[in-house]
Amino acid sequence: MTLPSHGANTHYLYEALQIDSPERTIDFSANLNPLGPPPSLKETWEDAFDLITTYPDPHAASLMTKLANVHDVEENQLLIGNGGAELITLVGRYLAGKRVCIVQPTFSEYETACLRAGCEVTYHTLEEGEWALGSHLVEKMPYVDAVFLCTPNNPTGVTYDPASILALVEAAKRYDCAIIIDEAFADFVGDDSSFSSLLAPFSNLMILRSLTKMYAIPGLRLGYMLAHPEVIEAIKKLQPHWSVNALALHAGELSLQETDFVAETHQVIELEREKCFHFFEENHFTYSNSSVNFYLLRDPELEDQSELLSFLMKKGIVPRHTENFPGLDGRWLRFAIRTPKENERLREVLTSWRS
Amino acid sequence: MTLPSHGANTHYLYEALQIDSPERTIDFSANLNPLGPPPSLKETWEDAFDLITTYPDPHAASLMTKLANVHDVEENQLLIGNGGAELITLVGRYLAGKRVCIVQPTFSEYETACLRAGCEVTYHTLEEGEWALGSHLVEKMPYVDAVFLCTPNNPTGVTYDPASILALVEAAKRYDCAIIIDEAFADFVGDDSSFSSLLAPFSNLMILRSLTKMYAIPGLRLGYMLAHPEVIEAIKKLQPHWSVNALALHAGELSLQETDFVAETHQVIELEREKCFHFFEENHFTYSNSSVNFYLLRDPELEDQSELLSFLMKKGIVPRHTENFPGLDGRWLRFAIRTPKENERLREVLTSWRS
Repeated sequence: MTLPSHGANTHYLYEALQIDSPERTIDFSANLNPLGPPPSLKETWEDAFDLITTYPDPHAASLMTKLANVHDVEENQLLIGNGGAELITLVGRYLAGKRVCIVQPTFSEYETACLRAGCEVTYHTLEEGEWALGSHLVEKMPYVDAVFLCTPNNPTGVTYDPASILALVEAAKRYDCAIIIDEAFADFVGDDSSFSSLLAPFSNLMILRSLTKMYAIPGLRLGYMLAHPEVIEAIKKLQPHWSVNALALHAGELSLQETDFVAETHQVIELEREKCFHFFEENHFTYSNSSVNFYLLRDPELEDQSELLSFLMKKGIVPRHTENFPGLDGRWLRFAIRTPKENERLREVLTSWRS
Repeated sequence: MTLPSHGANTHYLYEALQIDSPERTIDFSANLNPLGPPPSLKETWEDAFDLITTYPDPHAASLMTKLANVHDVEENQLLIGNGGAELITLVGRYLAGKRVCIVQPTFSEYETACLRAGCEVTYHTLEEGEWALGSHLVEKMPYVDAVFLCTPNNPTGVTYDPASILALVEAAKRYDCAIIIDEAFADFVGDDSSFSSLLAPFSNLMILRSLTKMYAIPGLRLGYMLAHPEVIEAIKKLQPHWSVNALALHAGELSLQETDFVAETHQVIELEREKCFHFFEENHFTYSNSSVNFYLLRDPELEDQSELLSFLMKKGIVPRHTENFPGLDGRWLRFAIRTPKENERLREVLTSWRS
């Protein structure tokens, strides 16, 4: 049985598990803002139609200016991509044939991209339960050309200690090793959570960012990366022309202005996470110490969680399996934090699992 | 002075030529259906909003089924891409390091993609004026690994003789040479203009198709390619996950049903092309023998057309320069066929150029 390699499109998981899908399902497998897209996207939607009829600006000039402003960088340190997945693929190509270390468990696309670009891939697997970054990774720097790190990490939701990351970036520079930090979920933590201020002193640093999670626009595809201008120039040459569609550019520009929406999102997620974690403790479920909009969960009475997965799916609750996350191997399930009502439904179903 | 490498986004051309843009301009530089997108796209636009909030189907299952039906091929002979430009980039990567011959003058992305993938690129340049495919290209087959050919060709609008193409594909197969036929504008000629029926006997054939020209959705990005299953499988591995956004998939599905819209488009373009060509003859302009929605034009009294280009742009008429088309080198300007009123405006301005 092969399970889908990603969350979302939940019918593929129902098919793979040969479970009949209930009429109503809730997708906890995609790590998106439970509030949906910011209101301005809906309000301007009718007018946005005309954008489909003209070619997107291949230089994305307007969004570039705004992003450079957000991160206080020059535009030549920026590249906008057709979702984070495109940028990961391009970084993989940029690293073609090199020795790459991936901090696991994490998003599977780093490995896919690197392997397809002929890289030699090794893992640094963090200890299950805490998933703290620790200091041992630094010792591997002399033996690799690049390290992929995701913080806050997908799928654990754990945010690594900034001091450990700084030590890592410094050590990497000494050994001429590139560090790729994926900050796809950083805006769920707060404004100061980006490592973009390290770009100036550390030319070996690349930062990946996504706009599809906080602004709930995965259907549009939009991400960007920050790096040294020479790295950006080299990676840009690998990108197809007009790679970023006109609606994504439009949505990106609007979304960056939505500071109230982001603040409200933080409030909702913090409150809902607390409610869920409190429930899990009371009901003897184990969960990851997430600081963002998703978390790992397991029933400690089961080694493999597939029985719980099936139970939930039959009830219309669709988590993300972890079979293809090295270091998790099915021992956990990942859940997005959804709306209060949907999280309540999850707790109800978990209660019925316990009874 | 460096002119933009593509049409559309006309302000970049005004900036490069240091011409003040008039308040009202007409973009003749993008080869799009003058009728705009099919009505069903506008009618379903409000409901389509929800598509931005969920991940696109990475397998594009529904559109794949429809495209396989259109071309009478198996789904494993198909790959949907983020616009034709992405597919060209991926084909370039697939051919990495190989000897590639490009039939010129043509779309510049073939060369860009191949050079960036480390290919050795040579040209087969067709004779200016007729731009007939002829038979000499066959003689080059033993010395190259792949040939790029666009028919109907961009930027001339000339459709090559099917018998010459068949001879080429046959010769290529004998010499283990791949043939890439870009049919981006084939649906402006008619239903029977695709070479997809040659896919079964010729495993060396790849066909590129676009849905953004006929259906006027370049802002969304959508194209596909047809090839032998093994070629598709190899190229698919080079493509980022979720590369095609959800709105493009939706628009593609709707557009393929729009047969009346396509028929109306054919009528309008044929009529407008006739009117323009008649005017050009009467007014001693030279034009290419186009069978599609764009054509090349030149004032035979000028060698280089930059003076005419500037004149037109000052009047708000924006053609496509041909400085970066090998074999044209600025001796022609390319114009899309636009609405009757807009074509009339072009003829007025050309009349004033003559007087």
